[in-house]
Amino acid sequence: MSETRHAAANAETFRRFCASEPVLEDVRPALEAMPGMTRETILTSGPPLPWREYTGGQRAAIIGGALFEGLAKNAAEAEAKLDSAEIRVRGCHDLGAVGSLAGIYTASMPVFVVRNKTFGNVGFCNFYEGTNPRRLNYGVYDDGVRDRLLYVQETVAPVLSEAVRAAGGIPLKPIMKRALHMSDELHSRNTAASLLFLRELFPSFLALAGSKRVAVEKAVAALTEDHYFFLRLSMAAAKATADAGHGIEGSSVVSAMGFSCKEFGIRVSGLGDAWFTGPHPTVQAKLFDGHTEDEISWMGGESIIAETIGLGGFAQAAAFPLQAYQGGDPQAMVERNLALYKITVGENTDFHIPFLKYRGTPTGIDICKVMENGITPAMNIGIAGRDGGQIGAGIVRAHAACFVRAQNAYKKKYGGA
Amino acid sequence: MSETRHAAANAETFRRFCASEPVLEDVRPALEAMPGMTRETILTSGPPLPWREYTGGQRAAIIGGALFEGLAKNAAEAEAKLDSAEIRVRGCHDLGAVGSLAGIYTASMPVFVVRNKTFGNVGFCNFYEGTNPRRLNYGVYDDGVRDRLLYVQETVAPVLSEAVRAAGGIPLKPIMKRALHMSDELHSRNTAASLLFLRELFPSFLALAGSKRVAVEKAVAALTEDHYFFLRLSMAAAKATADAGHGIEGSSVVSAMGFSCKEFGIRVSGLGDAWFTGPHPTVQAKLFDGHTEDEISWMGGESIIAETIGLGGFAQAAAFPLQAYQGGDPQAMVERNLALYKITVGENTDFHIPFLKYRGTPTGIDICKVMENGITPAMNIGIAGRDGGQIGAGIVRAHAACFVRAQNAYKKKYGGA
Repeated sequence: MSETRHAAANAETFRRFCASEPVLEDVRPALEAMPGMTRETILTSGPPLPWREYTGGQRAAIIGGALFEGLAKNAAEAEAKLDSAEIRVRGCHDLGAVGSLAGIYTASMPVFVVRNKTFGNVGFCNFYEGTNPRRLNYGVYDDGVRDRLLYVQETVAPVLSEAVRAAGGIPLKPIMKRALHMSDELHSRNTAASLLFLRELFPSFLALAGSKRVAVEKAVAALTEDHYFFLRLSMAAAKATADAGHGIEGSSVVSAMGFSCKEFGIRVSGLGDAWFTGPHPTVQAKLFDGHTEDEISWMGGESIIAETIGLGGFAQAAAFPLQAYQGGDPQAMVERNLALYKITVGENTDFHIPFLKYRGTPTGIDICKVMENGITPAMNIGIAGRDGGQIGAGIVRAHAACFVRAQNAYKKKYGGA
Repeated sequence: MSETRHAAANAETFRRFCASEPVLEDVRPALEAMPGMTRETILTSGPPLPWREYTGGQRAAIIGGALFEGLAKNAAEAEAKLDSAEIRVRGCHDLGAVGSLAGIYTASMPVFVVRNKTFGNVGFCNFYEGTNPRRLNYGVYDDGVRDRLLYVQETVAPVLSEAVRAAGGIPLKPIMKRALHMSDELHSRNTAASLLFLRELFPSFLALAGSKRVAVEKAVAALTEDHYFFLRLSMAAAKATADAGHGIEGSSVVSAMGFSCKEFGIRVSGLGDAWFTGPHPTVQAKLFDGHTEDEISWMGGESIIAETIGLGGFAQAAAFPLQAYQGGDPQAMVERNLALYKITVGENTDFHIPFLKYRGTPTGIDICKVMENGITPAMNIGIAGRDGGQIGAGIVRAHAACFVRAQNAYKKKYGGA
């Protein structure tokens, strides 16, 4: 493929990322909303693996999902059914979803349905479980986790669903644009976005207050209890955005990134649905009190869909308060953010960084530029512990191996040295 | 006075600024809430002047206030009654209030009642008029301005009053602390603070929705329509805070700053109620389209009470999005902010700047340090036009003259070279 056609393909992916207009249309159970979902399917994060290769917290989370969904009476039965493929494990991305950490989806879980109004495609994400560091998506399943999942499903989601439909859908991009000017980067910090989202739902909530005041109050509490509620909306919006730029012939732009317990992987717009995998990233973590580096454990993660479209680590200079949560200092955040312009196609036309004089965020990771410059994506993530639960947060830097593999595949398919 | 006693007095003012806990207790008409207010009194910003010395937009605003309150049938009658002191003009600060721009208060206007829970004193501020650049506090009075003032008074204030009382008061400091981590500096940018305030009122609003849904919706719209609603709460909180640090024997810390159409002035904690005045500040303005520098007009302003307690210009490195509104670039904002540490007593224990690694804002302007370092306060303000209305925003730098006068008075009272 000629340089010109290659550049045009990348520009088209970039254009689609920027032109996307994600709108939250509904909140519905995964089984109803997601094509391909079944009662016996469990989704999990990362380039899909055979069931037997899921280990540690991610394996525990999958088993927890089976128990939560009532697919087995106990862990042993769940494992047996997973071994026999009576319960089927699939990757979130294959059903149009993205998973936070272990990223467990089961049939009854509510999901955000986000449509890309410009291109028509849909992205999904399920709900934030709340502030307790012990959560299913961090590899923990016990009575407390189950109760919280049921609370989300039975109390928070229905009223939110009703409010979203009453509002006729909530456009997410205006919220995301504005939140970047309020110290969010829409991955590890969604404080402003959650409030802006609440503000959009306010008229619907008021209308519902007559009949469902307590439920509305509980939903509002869930929405604003910390910095994370909007993350799942940001993720669904990012998935709907990234998918619109996927499948462009000749494009060497990354259209998905994900971890499993075993590896890190990327998908590339012009290279179909293949995942190019390599070792886990290196981590610069800030751990919660009482935890140590040797506890750090990989159990999956696809929230880096945010980075894929120019948010998260690619917008970290918009969110200096992240220091307090994930460590690092402001100057390093700025320098790290600036370096990412060297590996991206362009400057986002909607997402801007006030500290960089409103420069658009570096958007559209080009695997060729990654290799040329020796700079891999920087990503803001939550950190899981060996024994399950969140033990901190940090900045990770992708390993080059998967980019090497992707570039080889690109050369093989499209030619070039 | 010895160096030691002087330092201790300044430290006590600083301590009181930091220890203050402003709480919004109520919303009530000025006449009911403010001791000293009468039906025939009009308050206006700045070191008080004899009525005849108010000129331009500030004079027009005072006359507008008289007409709004029904104290005169037309401008000529209002002027006659003001000439004969049948209508009395007083300074906002003398009644425990602070005025935005011209800062007009009349008897029927609703005011926020903010109590400093730590020290017991109360500060007041009236309401933001809305996004229209033509406003009474920018020297304009016409049918549109009157209608909006009545809308605030009859529609927004009553439901807010009810909600605040139902909530048992709203502590403002937690909102202010958090807003500084969301790109507000609580003077020219209050975007996050307005949303956080809304979030605190949410349960009360839900409870009121049954009987007053339309009114609640209107109040919410007024609260969130732009970046300014919370400013008046920030100002009342700052006034309640600054007053708590006023009147400390031997303290050379500034406890109030204000403009009138004629001059700029400061009060000093250890120097009683005297104002030390001098020429207007120099202006670096960003004007709205279609306006020019020669239109810039002074018509008063006391919102710089924010700067007095370590916010606004003293927290500008927390609010990089202000570039878009008032001009300047991020590096200049950081440098300007850093320089203010040289003229202040200490680093605020509650107000922190993420970009400066969560350093406390420079707080407590010491007139002696101002003179020693040749650095005067930097302040973020709205800019009024010759013909009334807001024509832009900008950063102003105080002139040294009033600090010279204040220091002379300090030496006269307390001794020293």
